[in-house]
Amino acid sequence: MQRIITLTSDFGYRDPYVAAMKGVMVHIAPDARFVDITHGISAQDIAEAAFVLRQSCPFFPRKSIHLVVIDPGVGTERLPVGLEYKGQFYIGPDNGLFPLLMGEESADRIVALDKKEYWRTGEPSTTFHGRDVFAPVAGHLARGVALRDVGTPLRKLQPLRWGMPISDESGVRGWIIHIDHFGNCISNIPQSLLEKYAAGNDVTCYVGSTIINGIHNTYGDVDQQEPVVLFGSSGFLEVAINGGDAHQLLSIKKGDPVNVIFADARRRHATRRKAGLR
Amino acid sequence: MQRIITLTSDFGYRDPYVAAMKGVMVHIAPDARFVDITHGISAQDIAEAAFVLRQSCPFFPRKSIHLVVIDPGVGTERLPVGLEYKGQFYIGPDNGLFPLLMGEESADRIVALDKKEYWRTGEPSTTFHGRDVFAPVAGHLARGVALRDVGTPLRKLQPLRWGMPISDESGVRGWIIHIDHFGNCISNIPQSLLEKYAAGNDVTCYVGSTIINGIHNTYGDVDQQEPVVLFGSSGFLEVAINGGDAHQLLSIKKGDPVNVIFADARRRHATRRKAGLR
Amino acid sequence: MQRIITLTSDFGYRDPYVAAMKGVMVHIAPDARFVDITHGISAQDIAEAAFVLRQSCPFFPRKSIHLVVIDPGVGTERLPVGLEYKGQFYIGPDNGLFPLLMGEESADRIVALDKKEYWRTGEPSTTFHGRDVFAPVAGHLARGVALRDVGTPLRKLQPLRWGMPISDESGVRGWIIHIDHFGNCISNIPQSLLEKYAAGNDVTCYVGSTIINGIHNTYGDVDQQEPVVLFGSSGFLEVAINGGDAHQLLSIKKGDPVNVIFADARRRHATRRKAGLR
Repeated sequence: MQRIITLTSDFGYRDPYVAAMKGVMVHIAPDARFVDITHGISAQDIAEAAFVLRQSCPFFPRKSIHLVVIDPGVGTERLPVGLEYKGQFYIGPDNGLFPLLMGEESADRIVALDKKEYWRTGEPSTTFHGRDVFAPVAGHLARGVALRDVGTPLRKLQPLRWGMPISDESGVRGWIIHIDHFGNCISNIPQSLLEKYAAGNDVTCYVGSTIINGIHNTYGDVDQQEPVVLFGSSGFLEVAINGGDAHQLLSIKKGDPVNVIFADARRRHATRRKAGLR
Repeated sequence: MQRIITLTSDFGYRDPYVAAMKGVMVHIAPDARFVDITHGISAQDIAEAAFVLRQSCPFFPRKSIHLVVIDPGVGTERLPVGLEYKGQFYIGPDNGLFPLLMGEESADRIVALDKKEYWRTGEPSTTFHGRDVFAPVAGHLARGVALRDVGTPLRKLQPLRWGMPISDESGVRGWIIHIDHFGNCISNIPQSLLEKYAAGNDVTCYVGSTIINGIHNTYGDVDQQEPVVLFGSSGFLEVAINGGDAHQLLSIKKGDPVNVIFADARRRHATRRKAGLR
Repeated sequence: MQRIITLTSDFGYRDPYVAAMKGVMVHIAPDARFVDITHGISAQDIAEAAFVLRQSCPFFPRKSIHLVVIDPGVGTERLPVGLEYKGQFYIGPDNGLFPLLMGEESADRIVALDKKEYWRTGEPSTTFHGRDVFAPVAGHLARGVALRDVGTPLRKLQPLRWGMPISDESGVRGWIIHIDHFGNCISNIPQSLLEKYAAGNDVTCYVGSTIINGIHNTYGDVDQQEPVVLFGSSGFLEVAINGGDAHQLLSIKKGDPVNVIFADARRRHATRRKAGLR
């Protein structure tokens, strides 16, 4: 079976780095098939990368290998790791991205990539582990080496505590992690989290310069050029404008807070205010 | 024979959408080969997409499958369609793009993609037919399913009347549909249309801030930094500057009108004016 | 063995040109495998292209075919050429790029691509040799035709004298040829050249708005947000900021001069000045 290696990075499309990694992998696993997810992740933005991977990796076959090189800490102490999760493999630096990707779930196996016989021959360059460590290991997995053989078992990954939205009985507070090509603004609030607390559409969203009532199913549920909040194909809460660019029209930027307040909480709050409570 | 699936969209290069479609197709047709035409079509610009496809699809082998997801009407009533044209297959929404692509020609077979057994399992997402309808159907074609089996015959596609240039005995009026990476400005005026009316080079072109006499064969036919009108490799009338950027130097923007006036018409016009006619 | 064809151009990602070349090649060599190096080379910038190729081609297997279409002179007299270098093949216009790529080394075989039976059928378009000459020849090489059969032997390539840095006993003067996605500024000064003259790190670099002492091994050798000069994974002298964007913070632009002055020379200079010499 031809193995698939996907590639995700913040290397952009003008540099030689991605092709160098592919050259290295093609040497080791001539039959592997490459699919670029994106190399347009904002520089060092592991939250955006985690979102993009959540949105694309599940559609690939079992045993696919996902090479993920977003590496703010290159040249420092962070470990190179490999992991098995839902029957697929992930290779990259241990910088909090993978826990963000898995959410409340966890990996079936984690190894620290410390077996130098699976690295590129010669000392690895101090500035390009993507080419010298991660790509060769991905290549060896693609030609059938087992994950347990390319490294030493690791108990847990570095967590990334600040990456998840905050929620309580009154609502959920997250932020915009990705603005897509159409200006749709995607938050880090998963549908599952909201459903745990809010019944149906009875919520109000505060984001950018606007307030939006209710959550809809599709862009077309509101009038042309009207703002809409929905769980798009991503499973994350998304702010859009039907037929328009929410990023520009609502002045929403990456990193902006998104507050989803439950109607119950608002009502309670209103009642308390009437009663003179706070 | 390994089947080719090309991909064209306005999804850009930073989002997970293209990779999700590839993941879906790789599941269904593990042997299919992907070639990205471009994902940089301007948002919802079906005229630009038609131009790009006209310029690239004919070079691919028979039986290639072209997946084209420019979909301003996603979530609304427009039909998902598949068609056979010149021995190749096209899959996408029925929004006027395909008639524009085929010009005065027509498809050999058209089907409405309404056989849900060829869609992705589960209700299709209301916002991402590319992944849930178009990509699975393309995958099934690639593994050998016939076009007639993935949908119900359709008599004709939605036309797009505003997409073609206007012509009469005095000249042709079109507009700029694409500005390429070098600043060359490509119009929607095909060589065939002009040859029907104008003999040789005896024309004058009005575009942006300039007037250009005659149509040349190559950029080098005029001096460095001089403007030139030619039918480049595209077969469409193109405004360029030899060694320069016509987009910037001539202030030509996408959508700008291009008027090609025949010398005969100008002469007649001049004669009439002398004679006091209008 | 499946042959690899890499593609490098300044065509960008929005035009049909790259896909047209792939369509042509897939016809001729259905088994060839495409790897895009980049299509984001700055328009007609052969120095940048040479840098990117030096950084990526060596990682590909023997017999890989590199299709390189940066072609400021298209439609003029420059020859289309093919060459063999370090067991790989390069196809493109003879415009100085390949000598720049090979530095002090030279090709094992050079041919002028003048055998029209290996071009695309029909007169080649005067504006798109990439599709009509270079791609078909690359395709024929991929299906096993020998380089000597696709053209006539050529003794030497057009040189590009202005492309190399200048050096003498007091130092090396080069310039910035590429600014990568992270804002790292890469010069045309190879490590080998500097090592020939300078012992160890005893140098001072003048570039943009700053002066930097010494050459380090890794970004992390200096404090966060401090500038650093190093030979990165490229083997070329590179100006960076640890955890920052040197391009923006140091106001370095493409084409800016980089002066590396040896400590000996500075000392001598200082001594001479003290002694009243110049």
